[in-house]
Amino acid sequence: MEFKINSKVLEKLLSKIIPAVPVRTPMSILENFLFDIQDGSLTVYATDLEMSLISSINVAADDNIKMVLPAKLLYEIIRSLGDTLVHFKVESSSKIKLTTDNGEYDISYLPHDDFPIIPKVPVENETTIAGDDLRRAFEYTSFAIGKEDVRPAMTGMLFEFSDEGLKFITTDSHRLIKHINKNLKFDDNQQYVIPEKAISILLKLISHNDVKFYFSNSNALFKIDDITFISRLINDKYPAYNSVIPLVNENKLKLDAKEILASVKRMILFSIADNKQVRFSIETNDLEISAEDNERGSKAKEHLHCEYDGEPMEIGFNTIYLQEILNHIEDDEIIFKLHSSTKACIIVPSQPKENEDTMFLLMPIRLNN
Amino acid sequence: MEFKINSKVLEKLLSKIIPAVPVRTPMSILENFLFDIQDGSLTVYATDLEMSLISSINVAADDNIKMVLPAKLLYEIIRSLGDTLVHFKVESSSKIKLTTDNGEYDISYLPHDDFPIIPKVPVENETTIAGDDLRRAFEYTSFAIGKEDVRPAMTGMLFEFSDEGLKFITTDSHRLIKHINKNLKFDDNQQYVIPEKAISILLKLISHNDVKFYFSNSNALFKIDDITFISRLINDKYPAYNSVIPLVNENKLKLDAKEILASVKRMILFSIADNKQVRFSIETNDLEISAEDNERGSKAKEHLHCEYDGEPMEIGFNTIYLQEILNHIEDDEIIFKLHSSTKACIIVPSQPKENEDTMFLLMPIRLNN
Repeated sequence: MEFKINSKVLEKLLSKIIPAVPVRTPMSILENFLFDIQDGSLTVYATDLEMSLISSINVAADDNIKMVLPAKLLYEIIRSLGDTLVHFKVESSSKIKLTTDNGEYDISYLPHDDFPIIPKVPVENETTIAGDDLRRAFEYTSFAIGKEDVRPAMTGMLFEFSDEGLKFITTDSHRLIKHINKNLKFDDNQQYVIPEKAISILLKLISHNDVKFYFSNSNALFKIDDITFISRLINDKYPAYNSVIPLVNENKLKLDAKEILASVKRMILFSIADNKQVRFSIETNDLEISAEDNERGSKAKEHLHCEYDGEPMEIGFNTIYLQEILNHIEDDEIIFKLHSSTKACIIVPSQPKENEDTMFLLMPIRLNN
Repeated sequence: MEFKINSKVLEKLLSKIIPAVPVRTPMSILENFLFDIQDGSLTVYATDLEMSLISSINVAADDNIKMVLPAKLLYEIIRSLGDTLVHFKVESSSKIKLTTDNGEYDISYLPHDDFPIIPKVPVENETTIAGDDLRRAFEYTSFAIGKEDVRPAMTGMLFEFSDEGLKFITTDSHRLIKHINKNLKFDDNQQYVIPEKAISILLKLISHNDVKFYFSNSNALFKIDDITFISRLINDKYPAYNSVIPLVNENKLKLDAKEILASVKRMILFSIADNKQVRFSIETNDLEISAEDNERGSKAKEHLHCEYDGEPMEIGFNTIYLQEILNHIEDDEIIFKLHSSTKACIIVPSQPKENEDTMFLLMPIRLNN
């Protein structure tokens, strides 16, 4: 059994599939690719049982075969060959020989029976979204996915199909981010929670092209260019996040986005290690931002120009959480919507993109004085 | 006591001095800069006791003062301020206030008495070398500096002043590298051993401009642009390296540099973890390179075109050591000078730069079978 393929072409394919190969696993079979050659088409599979990547390509083959090949070794060899034709030849039930103009490389392979079965997701109820829109939704929201699995759903991203649009929700209980894509509207309200790791893999795969996706009860399937990505869903109900979002935050503080971000970055240098507190003292047209590190005997105070429509107020935030939110807003101006020093603050870009809505909810921290 | 300085100017100065500040140290005083303001000149010092960095700059100051300021905090603050005038004002015997247009930053400082004394090196017997020549000498040789301190001298780089030129020598007992700069010749033969860490700091500081340097019995001093760098020398006699270098290796193997490097990189993928052996089977105009990983049941064999003037020979090398040497040769062609499978191999670029001489000595390993 023989087939031929260009090394650059195979490298490109394998580079897209290898992210699903686990780096460390007690199940050594997962460290392999499944190669399935049928009727002149090579399909490569990789899975870590949580998620799977699949892609196909045409090859010049004289027969059909399924075999399990060491993923990292094969990828590294193919990558090291530059641009050349590689001739694969099955030599025995466990050996395959790769031949190029100057070299011969023998690799062991395993029978395919032990390779895990990849979950099937029916290709129905298709949703299509522009690659750039999906990337932006992930970039806005993914950083606030929870790290602790006390509530498993919070370690993933909620996809909510609704008549308002497709909603992307994340929260780690200190912050909650809601991004709505209003180009897509749905009659049926449906909720699916995708694990964080799947989101980070998807972020690497998404191009400018359209992405199609499908959900079953237990899995999501994404088609991105010539790649199929399947991820298990988190089997846990997402928290009722709407009850956390304040309906009216009447005090509005408008700030220059670059200025406030630069200021908060400086405050991080002065906020004590275990507290990381920055204080906003807000008056009409003046925001005083301050932080103090009692242990090192240092402190900082800055005045920023602002537009503020409301009562004078003092409110404290975690500098790191605030910085992360500000880092993710590309607008020139940012609006903080406030109610009181103990109630959730809503941060929004002053001019959201058309057909999009993004809000960052940040819980204040109690000021210590 | 007050002084003013532009933040960008101070940032540039501090960025060059901060490499001498240790990241972790039981002596917390070393985590600081010494600021010495005298007659309108600010000199900043940092040291980890092994090496020191010093630089000066003019400032608008109304008095003289010495003070010890937290290095990382100060550097991060100055860096975060963008481009602005910073007004430093001493507020008490332990507090200094930095003021900009929008902000005020209070920092604690320490008295200067506890700051270590920086070693003095007499500025005599000056040597001047082009920055690019010194960089190249370090880049050729520094990777082979020994990691184990059984012989302390081998954890440094030998500077040898001789009538042949200025010699730069490193060895880790598996490899020995000798680089000679023949532009500089000396009547007195002198040897100084500089620690590896000092070399890596110097590599970051060297520009295209000339470097001046001076040695005392215990320290080296380098002047690079407006920076002074002082390093302790290693107080241990360097091994008599000349006795290791074979006088005649009569068999010469000439190879294309890119081809042999690419081939060796592939062999690394196939050489077993604890042996890392690559086999050269050399005949006239043909080099067979091979490696074998018995544990994973994989092996590789390649044929490279070569020019070989000598008896057919088999010789084994450590793939990693060989790759590191080949990585450091920029020529189009490389010559391996061989005697037998158990004797040191000499690797040289086929066309060395004018007034330079570089050789890489690599010990072979015993072929297992």
